[in-house]
Amino acid sequence: MTASKILLLVLDGASDRPCEALDGLTPLQAADTPVLDGFASGGICGIMDPVAPGIRPGSDTAHLSLIGYPPENYYTGRGPLEAEGAGIHMEEGMIGFRANFATIDENGVITDRRAGRIRETAALISAIREGVDLSSHGVEFMFESGKGHRAAFALKGEGLGAGVTSNDPKHEGMPPKEIQPLGSSPSDAKTARVCNDFIRQSGEILASHPLNTGRQEEGLPPANIVLIRGAGKMGHFETFEEKHGLRGSVISTATLITGIGKVVGLHQATPAGVTGSVAGISAKVAAAMAELEERDFVLLNIKGADEKGHDGDPVAKMRFIAECDTALRDLVPGDDCLVVICSDHSTPCSIKDHSADPVPLVISGEGVRIDDVTHFDEISCAGGGLNRISGQSLMPILLDLINKTDKYGA
Amino acid sequence: MTASKILLLVLDGASDRPCEALDGLTPLQAADTPVLDGFASGGICGIMDPVAPGIRPGSDTAHLSLIGYPPENYYTGRGPLEAEGAGIHMEEGMIGFRANFATIDENGVITDRRAGRIRETAALISAIREGVDLSSHGVEFMFESGKGHRAAFALKGEGLGAGVTSNDPKHEGMPPKEIQPLGSSPSDAKTARVCNDFIRQSGEILASHPLNTGRQEEGLPPANIVLIRGAGKMGHFETFEEKHGLRGSVISTATLITGIGKVVGLHQATPAGVTGSVAGISAKVAAAMAELEERDFVLLNIKGADEKGHDGDPVAKMRFIAECDTALRDLVPGDDCLVVICSDHSTPCSIKDHSADPVPLVISGEGVRIDDVTHFDEISCAGGGLNRISGQSLMPILLDLINKTDKYGA
Repeated sequence: MTASKILLLVLDGASDRPCEALDGLTPLQAADTPVLDGFASGGICGIMDPVAPGIRPGSDTAHLSLIGYPPENYYTGRGPLEAEGAGIHMEEGMIGFRANFATIDENGVITDRRAGRIRETAALISAIREGVDLSSHGVEFMFESGKGHRAAFALKGEGLGAGVTSNDPKHEGMPPKEIQPLGSSPSDAKTARVCNDFIRQSGEILASHPLNTGRQEEGLPPANIVLIRGAGKMGHFETFEEKHGLRGSVISTATLITGIGKVVGLHQATPAGVTGSVAGISAKVAAAMAELEERDFVLLNIKGADEKGHDGDPVAKMRFIAECDTALRDLVPGDDCLVVICSDHSTPCSIKDHSADPVPLVISGEGVRIDDVTHFDEISCAGGGLNRISGQSLMPILLDLINKTDKYGA
Repeated sequence: MTASKILLLVLDGASDRPCEALDGLTPLQAADTPVLDGFASGGICGIMDPVAPGIRPGSDTAHLSLIGYPPENYYTGRGPLEAEGAGIHMEEGMIGFRANFATIDENGVITDRRAGRIRETAALISAIREGVDLSSHGVEFMFESGKGHRAAFALKGEGLGAGVTSNDPKHEGMPPKEIQPLGSSPSDAKTARVCNDFIRQSGEILASHPLNTGRQEEGLPPANIVLIRGAGKMGHFETFEEKHGLRGSVISTATLITGIGKVVGLHQATPAGVTGSVAGISAKVAAAMAELEERDFVLLNIKGADEKGHDGDPVAKMRFIAECDTALRDLVPGDDCLVVICSDHSTPCSIKDHSADPVPLVISGEGVRIDDVTHFDEISCAGGGLNRISGQSLMPILLDLINKTDKYGA
């Protein structure tokens, strides 16, 4: 028999470097992970450069690479993917931005870049959608709320470029910046003009909005300015089904990852109300099992380890991985399904950011050659039967294992 | 902590194949190398294709690849690099050649391609510089002495091509060849004309030079003809600092390697009077330690093993490696420095020339994942945590380990 389905489990940022607090082990080495080790023992292991050796990937470029969309051909910045994740349908040529609400004082200085971490912005979003008018530029806009103070913004119209700066001064105590075109192209200049007009009009609406006057009366920072960044022009993405012949789903609590899923036409199967917590993992695993009944491919992203890496906390990262491992006990797909487990990138606690170190990888299931690796970690997997592969090779290898590739030659 | 500096130690040609005289071991396997093994034990090992699998590299193309200048984009023949190493400042567009003095008899036959390994050619060089005139071609020339019978030659002017043959017949007992353009381009034809004129004019000067008449009286072969080869047009090289953001130095007794260093703007830090001998290694190691106080990157090339490989002497190669290892005891950089040890290419004693066999590699220092390799040799390193990488990936990987890469994506 040959497997016909693929579960791709991405332990976001779980890969690391040796940690002093763990006696020189990585969190994956130090954690008690009987479930992950079971997959390693019964499968073929290796290490993987998500994008290329020495290239430090973002979660977005890494995920694109792993699911068969090489970022050098498909990646146009974080904005369009975040916008899609937030619910804006990004058509080819549209300009997408990440956005968030912030607080500006009467002197025009940003005093809180997250507007007191405001939680509910639906009323503000509605007011902006109704009140801002960009039609004099011949441009439509979309504005959607994200989590908390976050939002997404997009522009649709002729002659718009993506080469523009942000109005975010990056530090509090400074005024917002004027958005500028990066080069001399008229399309970038047009986008900059439209954006500055949007910021001005939305600012006027926010200043007098009852939700904000209410917050001020309560002593809370008002959400009275929108900061936008990460401009990118939406490119053309074949759907996952067109590209690979597989009907797939995505399960993730990260907007960026669900955005990538939407862009390539993956079914959104994240259970409602689930968070990135350990408790949420069981729910996501259950959802993945259910999806595999209906579909050929599930991308299951588990976020927590990455956050612990960014926090620089090796012990917490090790604990999260161990708890995650426990929740993965229920990851028992049928014989018709390959289980593929990897990280999208390393997030070493020592640098509190992503690094280019290769990530561990295991492929287990019907037809897979079994090596003698028995532990899922960065060093053990390097001794596995896959050796070192590129992230762009993952989908072709998996498609071959499920007999979905064509012979090249005779 | 993250390291911020890099010492790249290249054991030139140390990599080999199994040698009968060493009971089937390679010289690196057979040699007693506690220092190299210490780096292997405390670091991450692998094997590396200096240029690409199956590509038999020169020292020049290999070094260019290892320091981040892929030879397919940067290499234009050995001539320009040798010329730079010999002290000619090669500007973009100049044509560089390797040159040497040889002996031609009264019948026009080359009787000694190295002019009796003449040691002192400064007077001949001066006479040629003063006496040869290429201004009728609208061309300037540069001519510099190298070691012993070696020299370097370069042309500067409009409309010069690098597609020309050599006048070296390669075998003694034959007349020198006429230099020919390789194709039909007028620029190659011009270079051939200029070169033939240079050979003719310099030959006349050398024939009557007192140094040569003196040699003939002593029964020594006169240095009465210049052979030139390896024509290449100097390309554009960003400096190492522009490319990688690191201030670097080069330490090497090989003109070709110091030439590469000059071309990319590495500081020349080879101690005066040091030779390629074992005794010289300690001086070079000390110089490297001193340079690392001032700079971010040191390329330290140690040449001897390559020569023993070219000699086809496995026992001598093994002994040189062991003696070299002893001299490396003083290679103790601070915690802020990665130590990277590799060969630039294999020089198997069995073939007395370079081969494409991958070379062993170790990266040791802060942040590096530590595998279980405990011996620095071609076979042990193949089992290491880096697996097999390309020489072009080395600098990106190292730059990531010292936190000098930008994130690609978010």
